[in-house]
Amino acid sequence: MQKIEHIGIAVKSLETSIPLFELLLDTKCYKTETVENEMVKTAFFDTKNGKIELLETTAENGPIAKFLAKKGEGIHHIAFEVADIKKEMARLEKEGFVLLNTEPKKGADNKLICFLHPKSTNGVLIELCESC
Amino acid sequence: MQKIEHIGIAVKSLETSIPLFELLLDTKCYKTETVENEMVKTAFFDTKNGKIELLETTAENGPIAKFLAKKGEGIHHIAFEVADIKKEMARLEKEGFVLLNTEPKKGADNKLICFLHPKSTNGVLIELCESC
Repeated sequence: MQKIEHIGIAVKSLETSIPLFELLLDTKCYKTETVENEMVKTAFFDTKNGKIELLETTAENGPIAKFLAKKGEGIHHIAFEVADIKKEMARLEKEGFVLLNTEPKKGADNKLICFLHPKSTNGVLIELCESC
Repeated sequence: MQKIEHIGIAVKSLETSIPLFELLLDTKCYKTETVENEMVKTAFFDTKNGKIELLETTAENGPIAKFLAKKGEGIHHIAFEVADIKKEMARLEKEGFVLLNTEPKKGADNKLICFLHPKSTNGVLIELCESC
């Protein structure tokens, strides 16, 4: 792991939450992006050392819809930047962590990503990401 | 807000979770500290741009004990560094955010801190912190 790349926050509505987080963080949302394969629409804020990523579901059965139904709005995951995602996935798997995908997949913000199962990380959903 | 200072994670046992997070983050825990008035024992990891802070309760009725009973282990809060905590508290209160304390209080790692109520921040517990 190199550094915190972003913190993902599940919200019901970007329309409501973007202005709220602009006030909270005192900075403007600089990008929104839909990630089809993750069934999310994302909104990014730059906090100078790590981003805040708001996540709204685009599908009733998407992972963010399921998270909201179970836990309500709140912090969804922490993403760490890695230099070589395949190498880090191999290291973590060897250490006993459970990977949610066997190959890196395309995420938001032009990244290759992989999630770790929260059951192996004290309930924390961890994302690894490598800049493409 | 200036930058992400740390992410707080509620855990049942530091004894179990410190070695787990050392493996996960591939870095050693560099400090543990008990914060009496918050009823927590903390353990810090440096991720180069923002810390990970594990939180174990020191009291049956402490805030981390209540969090674990309600939600289980997982991400507890995001802390942002601010240059002038009183000024930022005044700005946020004026914008309609709900502060959990009216005056900054002493937190871990030699900081003055203040929490915002999650009901005003989409379910996210936010901590402001200013280095003393």
